[in-house]
Amino acid sequence: MQPDQVAQCLLYIIVLLLVAKVFGELAERVHQPAVVGELIAGIILGGSVLGFIRMEGAGGASPACTALSFIAELGVILLLFEVGLESDLDDFLGVGSSALMVAVIGVVGPFAAGYFVSLLFHLSSATALFMGAALTATSVGITARTLGDLGQLRTNAAKTILGAAVIDDVLGLIILAVVGGLSSTGRVSIWHVGETTLLAILFLVGSMVIGVPLAPHIMGILNRLRTRGMLTISAFLFCLGFAYVAHELGLAAIVGAFAAGLVLAKSCDRLHIQERIKPIADIFIPIFFVILGVSVNLGVFNPFHAESRASLTLAGGLILVAIVMKVVAGLGVLRKGINRLVVGVGMIPRGEVGLIFASIGYGKGIINSMEYSAIVGVVVFTTLVTPPLLKLVIKESPQKAHATS
Amino acid sequence: MQPDQVAQCLLYIIVLLLVAKVFGELAERVHQPAVVGELIAGIILGGSVLGFIRMEGAGGASPACTALSFIAELGVILLLFEVGLESDLDDFLGVGSSALMVAVIGVVGPFAAGYFVSLLFHLSSATALFMGAALTATSVGITARTLGDLGQLRTNAAKTILGAAVIDDVLGLIILAVVGGLSSTGRVSIWHVGETTLLAILFLVGSMVIGVPLAPHIMGILNRLRTRGMLTISAFLFCLGFAYVAHELGLAAIVGAFAAGLVLAKSCDRLHIQERIKPIADIFIPIFFVILGVSVNLGVFNPFHAESRASLTLAGGLILVAIVMKVVAGLGVLRKGINRLVVGVGMIPRGEVGLIFASIGYGKGIINSMEYSAIVGVVVFTTLVTPPLLKLVIKESPQKAHATS
Repeated sequence: MQPDQVAQCLLYIIVLLLVAKVFGELAERVHQPAVVGELIAGIILGGSVLGFIRMEGAGGASPACTALSFIAELGVILLLFEVGLESDLDDFLGVGSSALMVAVIGVVGPFAAGYFVSLLFHLSSATALFMGAALTATSVGITARTLGDLGQLRTNAAKTILGAAVIDDVLGLIILAVVGGLSSTGRVSIWHVGETTLLAILFLVGSMVIGVPLAPHIMGILNRLRTRGMLTISAFLFCLGFAYVAHELGLAAIVGAFAAGLVLAKSCDRLHIQERIKPIADIFIPIFFVILGVSVNLGVFNPFHAESRASLTLAGGLILVAIVMKVVAGLGVLRKGINRLVVGVGMIPRGEVGLIFASIGYGKGIINSMEYSAIVGVVVFTTLVTPPLLKLVIKESPQKAHATS
Repeated sequence: MQPDQVAQCLLYIIVLLLVAKVFGELAERVHQPAVVGELIAGIILGGSVLGFIRMEGAGGASPACTALSFIAELGVILLLFEVGLESDLDDFLGVGSSALMVAVIGVVGPFAAGYFVSLLFHLSSATALFMGAALTATSVGITARTLGDLGQLRTNAAKTILGAAVIDDVLGLIILAVVGGLSSTGRVSIWHVGETTLLAILFLVGSMVIGVPLAPHIMGILNRLRTRGMLTISAFLFCLGFAYVAHELGLAAIVGAFAAGLVLAKSCDRLHIQERIKPIADIFIPIFFVILGVSVNLGVFNPFHAESRASLTLAGGLILVAIVMKVVAGLGVLRKGINRLVVGVGMIPRGEVGLIFASIGYGKGIINSMEYSAIVGVVVFTTLVTPPLLKLVIKESPQKAHATS
């Protein structure tokens, strides 16, 4: 990287963090989660308004933007790692059946509803399959952050959402294997689907069953080294290692980071690790959410443009079922004392995985650019609407009294 | 950035940090600074040996490598910020005249000697001018790190080296303006040189005179904000802001970061800031030194290759004067009780700035690829030789007794 490119990226980070903090502060003063301010800050800095940062130029991303977007990804990985560190594995087992129900309903519902809505809009059956699939997976980053901003991470509702999001990711993997198979060879290989799913489940269960007893020993060995910063580096490597393996198995990197956090939460170094990871997370996490805002292209929603109008109508229909069906999934909560509405709303955000489905379909020529924009619309809308909505339903619920902390 | 590229970069960081720690540990066990192990780890991972990482592919740097090299740059910026934070401005004023003498001799000496050696090798006078200029600026990162590894950062010798390196950078700016002007228009604009130099000096002096009294107030305002991690983010922004301004004024970004550290060292939050910055620095700094090793192309030193042999001979001559003239510069130390040999050896490393001179000359067609490789050879050799050499001269000197801490 040339010194000028380094300086460019430094400038981006400076402006992003400054604006993120100012808008985050403003959001808190009007009793909204700070993350709402950061998203708005990003939209203002992005191509739709000021154009200070454009993540993709004519010739692809600039080096400064490439570096920035990696730092943003590190931010969300560290966020889920922190959430895992603050969680207790046993609590998740307690809400396990609820989380499973929420996840299954929250995947089957949006898939079926998305499929039928797409057919109503005269999309072909293959396209409708992809559109439905793109609506399934919850992107838990924004919910986790919002719950953290609201001090609600230790509630049973939060646990249910996090647990369901992990199961969601495994279900998404199955759907990806099925839909991917159907669209390329016209049939589904049970073996392939089974193997993929099994590996993912083995990783998640194995990391808990083997990881929890093993982690203290590994950390112990690393800590015995003399060079500086071993605890920080060990914890960071643990987090990145799990994120990497999760990605290689077809899961989201953040699910791996969350699992790493859960494992290390059981170690006796937990508090020290939290303390060391916090400063890094403090800096990187806001960058992720501002960049999320920067990536929003408000042009997609311009009603005065013909193609936008078409994708806007389709997006409208998809957004409706995307939200309604996840809220319905909240009814899957079996255990008493957990606010079903909070769980349902917490599952609304769609993200990366939805876009991955859409881009696979686009790459295969099954989804056209208008339909792709509609999916982008769903992702943007569900991301932006969740923090204030979550704030609203938490405020109106007596859930706070049920906080386990 | 695509998820696959993110995963690739995660893998790089995991492997880099693991190998850095293992080799750093091994280096310490044989009583060498950890940084020596990190450099060797980088060389082994790099294109010359294993080829695990190649920073520049056929089509430029990959997105993962771009992100990685930015993180490395952040590492060295944070290193100098930390060094600044650990330093006391007053101590620098105490060794000011020594530092000035060392810097002046250390710039004039290598410049003149490099010029004459180049003429001996039958280079044209214009080329010789660039070769001489490329030998002037000290790259203080590796010395600061080595002194830190050896627990010598608080000695007067360390203060003299750091002070001289900052002055060096200003002098380098003057030379760049002069040589750049000579080579493009054939004459030197006194106004341009004066303006550039004045701005740089104004920034450095101004940041101390205005920054020190002002910093606590700015930090105070930022700390009053409610959102999380304000102290960490404020300090980080301070560091990045200074680094950015320094770069824009033509100085090295690390000189700005060092100045930011010096300013905040005077604030009452100093210890808290050090504590928060440390975990970030722990992770990023080793990445910088491993990447430094990765960038080493041992092929430049292959004596069985004709063109390498030519650049090797030239590099040999230049390396000789580059080392001897900086060691001679150590004689510029006026104050008693400072080991002149330690100061001289500490000034040996050349880095970025030397390469910038070389690439400007290369861009203008004044330097050919053989001559460019020779400069790369000087940078690589002086970087690798400094940590063990520094360790050697510190061990043999009674300097430790003079440590101010």
